[in-house]
Amino acid sequence: MVINANFYMDLAVREAWRYQGLTYPNPAVGCTVVGLSGEILAVEAHKRAGGPHAEVEALKTAYFKLTNDEGILNILSSSEIHAYLLKNHKNCFKNVSLYTTLEPCSHIGKTPSCATLISSLGIKTLFVGSNDTNEEASGGNEILSKSGLHVEMNILKDECDALLRPFNKWTQKSFVFFKWAQRLNGTTDCGIISSQESRINVHAMRDKCDLLVIGGNTVRVDRPTLDARLINGKAPDVLIISKSKDFDMSIPLFGVKNRKVIISDNFSTCRDYKNIMIEGSSKMLELSRDIIDYYLCYLAPTVGGSNSFTKLDDKFKILNVQKEAQDIIMWMKREL
Amino acid sequence: MVINANFYMDLAVREAWRYQGLTYPNPAVGCTVVGLSGEILAVEAHKRAGGPHAEVEALKTAYFKLTNDEGILNILSSSEIHAYLLKNHKNCFKNVSLYTTLEPCSHIGKTPSCATLISSLGIKTLFVGSNDTNEEASGGNEILSKSGLHVEMNILKDECDALLRPFNKWTQKSFVFFKWAQRLNGTTDCGIISSQESRINVHAMRDKCDLLVIGGNTVRVDRPTLDARLINGKAPDVLIISKSKDFDMSIPLFGVKNRKVIISDNFSTCRDYKNIMIEGSSKMLELSRDIIDYYLCYLAPTVGGSNSFTKLDDKFKILNVQKEAQDIIMWMKREL
Repeated sequence: MVINANFYMDLAVREAWRYQGLTYPNPAVGCTVVGLSGEILAVEAHKRAGGPHAEVEALKTAYFKLTNDEGILNILSSSEIHAYLLKNHKNCFKNVSLYTTLEPCSHIGKTPSCATLISSLGIKTLFVGSNDTNEEASGGNEILSKSGLHVEMNILKDECDALLRPFNKWTQKSFVFFKWAQRLNGTTDCGIISSQESRINVHAMRDKCDLLVIGGNTVRVDRPTLDARLINGKAPDVLIISKSKDFDMSIPLFGVKNRKVIISDNFSTCRDYKNIMIEGSSKMLELSRDIIDYYLCYLAPTVGGSNSFTKLDDKFKILNVQKEAQDIIMWMKREL
Repeated sequence: MVINANFYMDLAVREAWRYQGLTYPNPAVGCTVVGLSGEILAVEAHKRAGGPHAEVEALKTAYFKLTNDEGILNILSSSEIHAYLLKNHKNCFKNVSLYTTLEPCSHIGKTPSCATLISSLGIKTLFVGSNDTNEEASGGNEILSKSGLHVEMNILKDECDALLRPFNKWTQKSFVFFKWAQRLNGTTDCGIISSQESRINVHAMRDKCDLLVIGGNTVRVDRPTLDARLINGKAPDVLIISKSKDFDMSIPLFGVKNRKVIISDNFSTCRDYKNIMIEGSSKMLELSRDIIDYYLCYLAPTVGGSNSFTKLDDKFKILNVQKEAQDIIMWMKREL
């Protein structure tokens, strides 16, 4: 294994994918901090909008490793971490390199600008994966270059761009991902498939979606709730794709508070939403394929059931695969 | 992400799995070398029997990082690397920690003892995953402890034991793994499934197997060669499980030189072999399940075909999953 800039960036990329979908409307970003001798001081990710950016999480962890100053450990708010680091860093970052999957932000939003923080801490070298095309936040690299910091761009650019794509879609229009759970033998029927950990992860995704799309037949047969109860999260609006508007209104999903349910024979409602999850099986995958950006598969290492995706003739590119608890979580896109 | 002993050992474990099956009759072993400040100097694996052990590969890489002495780079034989390191190390390893998935060997086999090398180089701390239960090679930790080296045992022990299990089976009796390729929707039919890289990997596995087991029906329908031509490797003997001994002898597998083909209605021939790969689909998986130690699945991110494993009701534990080229390679065992 070659231990180089790509290796450090890959650690950041992998960590960031674990929070893909959970950072909405912010991008999934990862950051690795490396010391003078090449020691890894931190690998962190942005975990949720409003929380510290990946760079801030990573600088916080690295600061403790470098100084042993426990004062920083209980500080959770991003602006307070910024302030604490600026006040107490005593040049401890002067030999440190930062690997961040996305150009540090230049704007002051819910948190202060990461570019300003990084340049103020006297960090040695910044390695960046993707450019930030978001007008409000971009320009971070310029701030940093002007401050005398050495910046290297395009480290694992393709991988970082793939990680960033949902964010770019949110800012342009909307991001649509098709999520399903299956067994090793491809089946999607016959009861619960995923582990409890995977189902909690799905509920956390739902909590961040504003629209959930599902087929009418699935609604009639499964009678789902489609909320985020496993994490006490908010339930997204639901679009039921169905020719008939006739549904038993005692199906739990209709009774969820603060939720709009739209029944339609097409996807045009999606235009009004930003972060859209489609749940379903073979038929829904076929119906929606033209609007899908990414595919998210929870693969349980079991064999059973009887029905799987069979009508398609598709090829995917795996963007990220990780084992989480018992299952495998895969993000993919369709290969053209 | 927590950067600790488990993190460094995990890097070694993941690298070692990439060579699982290819090191026969030696164990798959990985080794991470970490410097004074926590910098990763090397992550290497044992790649093939007769080649340097993981520790030697890793110490070679680390030595170059520490000294910049290019003299070591072209040395490939294990005994020459040993000799070069012993002669030239100049205490460069005095602050170095070694993370090895398996207790370093104490015996002089095809290569000199790793335990002696490690103790002679003045390494600071040794972190070990699994104990070596192989009588000939074990005792390495004792040699090392006596030399004054600090040894910590049982780091990620379960993961390291899972990595070591094929070796333990080889030394006790035999190791049997069931290998198959499938698409995302579980199908195993309709032509070539895996990428060229995965097929090369399978041929490298066959080259190290002494017996390949396959069903009579598959032989009759697919007319396979079952050799290791993609890597110019040796072809294993073949056991065809079939009630009828009637086969068209022009099927390529019968024409491969230096190969024994056994046709039998049972698996008793397996007793005469050490490293046994079973290839097949649903029926063979059912027939052979009682003798299978591990499962190896090549998962191609495509959808197509029509037949998949449907008759089973099984649960697996994923031991390792990695993306290799386009596909995913998964090692699993059955959960009881």
